Amino acid sequence: MDIDQQVLSRYITKRRTAVNRFLRAYLPAASCNPSLLHKAMRYSLFAGGKRIRPILCLAACEAVGGKPEIALPAAAAIELVHTYSLIHDDLPAMDNDDYRRGKPTNHKMFGDATAILAGDALLTAAFTLIAGQEMANSVTHKTRLSVISELGTAAGSLGMVGGQLADIAHNGQKPTFKQVQYIHTHKTGALIRASIRIGALLGGGVTEMAALTRYGEKIGLAFQIVDDVLDAKGTHNTDWTYPGVIGLRASEAEAGRLYQEALHDIKPLGPAAEPLRQLAAFVVERKK
Amino acid sequence: MDIDQQVLSRYITKRRTAVNRFLRAYLPAASCNPSLLHKAMRYSLFAGGKRIRPILCLAACEAVGGKPEIALPAAAAIELVHTYSLIHDDLPAMDNDDYRRGKPTNHKMFGDATAILAGDALLTAAFTLIAGQEMANSVTHKTRLSVISELGTAAGSLGMVGGQLADIAHNGQKPTFKQVQYIHTHKTGALIRASIRIGALLGGGVTEMAALTRYGEKIGLAFQIVDDVLDAKGTHNTDWTYPGVIGLRASEAEAGRLYQEALHDIKPLGPAAEPLRQLAAFVVERKK
Repeated sequence: MDIDQQVLSRYITKRRTAVNRFLRAYLPAASCNPSLLHKAMRYSLFAGGKRIRPILCLAACEAVGGKPEIALPAAAAIELVHTYSLIHDDLPAMDNDDYRRGKPTNHKMFGDATAILAGDALLTAAFTLIAGQEMANSVTHKTRLSVISELGTAAGSLGMVGGQLADIAHNGQKPTFKQVQYIHTHKTGALIRASIRIGALLGGGVTEMAALTRYGEKIGLAFQIVDDVLDAKGTHNTDWTYPGVIGLRASEAEAGRLYQEALHDIKPLGPAAEPLRQLAAFVVERKK
Repeated sequence: MDIDQQVLSRYITKRRTAVNRFLRAYLPAASCNPSLLHKAMRYSLFAGGKRIRPILCLAACEAVGGKPEIALPAAAAIELVHTYSLIHDDLPAMDNDDYRRGKPTNHKMFGDATAILAGDALLTAAFTLIAGQEMANSVTHKTRLSVISELGTAAGSLGMVGGQLADIAHNGQKPTFKQVQYIHTHKTGALIRASIRIGALLGGGVTEMAALTRYGEKIGLAFQIVDDVLDAKGTHNTDWTYPGVIGLRASEAEAGRLYQEALHDIKPLGPAAEPLRQLAAFVVERKK
């Protein structure tokens, strides 16, 4: 995998900074009433996330010839949805996690009730953002509705929430490969796939949409398999993971295979898709 | 208060049936994967709600001369938001209620995790619905974005979720009138006000919007005060309610005053607003 670490690192930092700056300005200040709620929302939103989904969204916009600025509000909205999902997933009633990225989880800091409401408010803010004035001058009304439709479908009961339900509902049973694949493609894959499609949509990509959708599906699944592999090399339980059902070696090989296929999918896009190629390598090669 | 019970009852039943039929067709079937999630979503959505918010939305659309069918998808989306808020409010981490409308609450039937996710999915479905094909032929893209914006703002951290946070965060403190008013106008009032505004928007009301917004604010607050009064006459705790801070008599008088003001607000709208007048009386006179 051919990857220029320095160029990629600059690329990622630049876009992450833009996403963070946008989100800081968009969300009500921590002093805004009710202050506890806005503090809790900001706590998880600025807890050091990689912003991989918004960066993929911006890169997809560029890959079809669009200016990344056009996709920035939508990219930020995607991160709002991702952050809400982490807060709710960490709750005692769900995965019951005390720490995320080395910091206490939202409910550990603010209590379960506030964490539930902070998640609800972040999810709501994602759709409000896309429907508001932030994209009003750069994109048609029709395209903005398509973005909301893509995001809502990916995040809803047939996408991310459906995958999360399947993940918590399997308690104690022995997983099949098909079930683990369903969870991965829905819980993680759906939002990553939507990030790519939304970026392409906002960049004006029409002929490239099918290829980018295939790329998004493969990168989404590869992302979660790499997560599984990293967990398996740590001290985590590997039940209901790719290493758990097909073994560690086969999982690494599968992530590599998906990476190669994703590159093949976007071959026709030429040099404009170079960031997407580098990001694919970043997703598969990352060590955390 | 002059109210023709039979006419009103027919009016309400007809529109409630239309909303229910729309929602039944829109939501994925209970057999749809993951089945547990869709069962949980449908359980609370069809647990016998009054559908007062969607009916107010349809009546506001009619009041400005629009056909109620145009507002039906948005009215249904409002009920999706309302139902999600009830599921999350009932959770053990929040109000910890075992029963709603005489039936076990969502988490009592399906467990806390599924209830959280069912609420998340209903909220997501509300925005997906408005952005999808259901309104595509009858309303401009711009208007649909405005509807999403209205709904998102009313439901979010500066509206309904903010009110709910204030309601759970006051633990043990002595309430002031101002605090109780803040909770009521946000937790309940914001979504009712938005229901009216969205109906007016979809009906093409421009000159009537200010009057209908005032009507919506008063009916929203009156609705919650009447709830408080009914609770106070039952066996409920009256802390943090209107009767708790200003007394039962003064609360009933305030609901009556708000009703009269709401009628005054929509006087210029003439006979088209007759359903809104009858619904206002229904809100204030109801016994449950």
